[in-house]
Amino acid sequence: MLYVVGIGPGGEEHLTKKAEEILKNVDLIVCYKGYKKFVERFNKPIYTTGMKKEIERVEYALRESKDKDVALVSSGDATIYGLASLAYELNEKKNYNVEIEVIPGITSASSCSAILGAPLNHDFVVLSLSDLLTPLDIILKRVRCALEGDFVIAIYNPMSKSRKEPFLKTIEIVKRYAEKNNTNYIIGIVKNAGRKNEEYKIITINELINNLEKYMEFIDMNTTLIIGNSNTKIIDGKMVTPRGYLNKYKIE
Amino acid sequence: MLYVVGIGPGGEEHLTKKAEEILKNVDLIVCYKGYKKFVERFNKPIYTTGMKKEIERVEYALRESKDKDVALVSSGDATIYGLASLAYELNEKKNYNVEIEVIPGITSASSCSAILGAPLNHDFVVLSLSDLLTPLDIILKRVRCALEGDFVIAIYNPMSKSRKEPFLKTIEIVKRYAEKNNTNYIIGIVKNAGRKNEEYKIITINELINNLEKYMEFIDMNTTLIIGNSNTKIIDGKMVTPRGYLNKYKIE
Repeated sequence: MLYVVGIGPGGEEHLTKKAEEILKNVDLIVCYKGYKKFVERFNKPIYTTGMKKEIERVEYALRESKDKDVALVSSGDATIYGLASLAYELNEKKNYNVEIEVIPGITSASSCSAILGAPLNHDFVVLSLSDLLTPLDIILKRVRCALEGDFVIAIYNPMSKSRKEPFLKTIEIVKRYAEKNNTNYIIGIVKNAGRKNEEYKIITINELINNLEKYMEFIDMNTTLIIGNSNTKIIDGKMVTPRGYLNKYKIE
Repeated sequence: MLYVVGIGPGGEEHLTKKAEEILKNVDLIVCYKGYKKFVERFNKPIYTTGMKKEIERVEYALRESKDKDVALVSSGDATIYGLASLAYELNEKKNYNVEIEVIPGITSASSCSAILGAPLNHDFVVLSLSDLLTPLDIILKRVRCALEGDFVIAIYNPMSKSRKEPFLKTIEIVKRYAEKNNTNYIIGIVKNAGRKNEEYKIITINELINNLEKYMEFIDMNTTLIIGNSNTKIIDGKMVTPRGYLNKYKIE
């Protein structure tokens, strides 16, 4: 049996009971090498591979699942940019015939929203800027559609050392919508959510553009951005998207 | 101190350690009356209000937080259609000066994705069809933007006994895009996620339209819909949105 388990944003505190229980009871844990430390406390055999070795990792997990209980660990949620769909695809293509169960976890959009205040408190988009598996033109079309719909936007994988173009083009598009709609979009930036070195900043699109180099030094692969919608505001230093109660019930 | 706590989809198993610890340690729990049973095991004083009494509930929680530790409980995540933003707004407007911390939880999109397979394994939109606080024309514009961007779409609050129009109009728009793009969108429907009477169906937009009455009897306020993108498929009876690994690495 294969369990694809989301372990949340990093620290132990956001692990669910179900995920904890599964990791305590399986025979083998398979994960990205960066998460090895996190799963060591379960005292199980651990198999890891590095970045871009996802297929090997999932195939190993599927093969071992034929006669063992295996946990394939994803950070955050198990399906949101996780390895659950690849497990289903390879299970069918290579005829492993393994039973698969997905255990959800706290995704970065949720954990970063909580850190920033409540920016995700209305309709939103979750979008990855990594063009490794998705063509850049599709990513940028999605950025435009998200802004056109005035969605709050949670951006995963904003940039890496070698991949800055999707981020720069995204910021260009946000700037254009900011001018068109006369809205200085509020942007929350969270780095290392749920880890010891967690940091966050709440700025605006104008502030970001005026100090682009500074912020680009701050942002990395462990950073999530949340761009507010046209109603998002800053309250007591926190980023808050109203749900609409105060307008509805006319509370002054 | 006020903790706005997301308790996940319903059962205890998806509660995080942090949420559990907070609920064990506060002096008072404030929640929607429907969640009273869930929080009784913590043996704390409980204050509840009903539907449409969110402002009274949050004001009570803020008032009590001045000299107590209070948990304001939301199902799912604390910010995603939860009460966190209202707490920040009222705290400022009414000068409560209470310290607020948000504890994230597993949102319905994650828990339903895990139940259905892995439909949320690429860029997605989370959208509520409730027009109680959001005008219907904005909701429908967001539906069009989401389809235009070929996002997976997680739909919360699809309909209630008295509110069916947003759902019917949404289905009309999905049908139009299905015809335009020649895509028979796959739709996952999950009812009572994480509860004893959990049920799910995986169908297509054509199947939904051809048996609309039947499915409208099934769908209620405790139902979440996930509409796939143009690449979403059914594998071994599960709904799966590929992330793109198999195309990228040309695995046949």
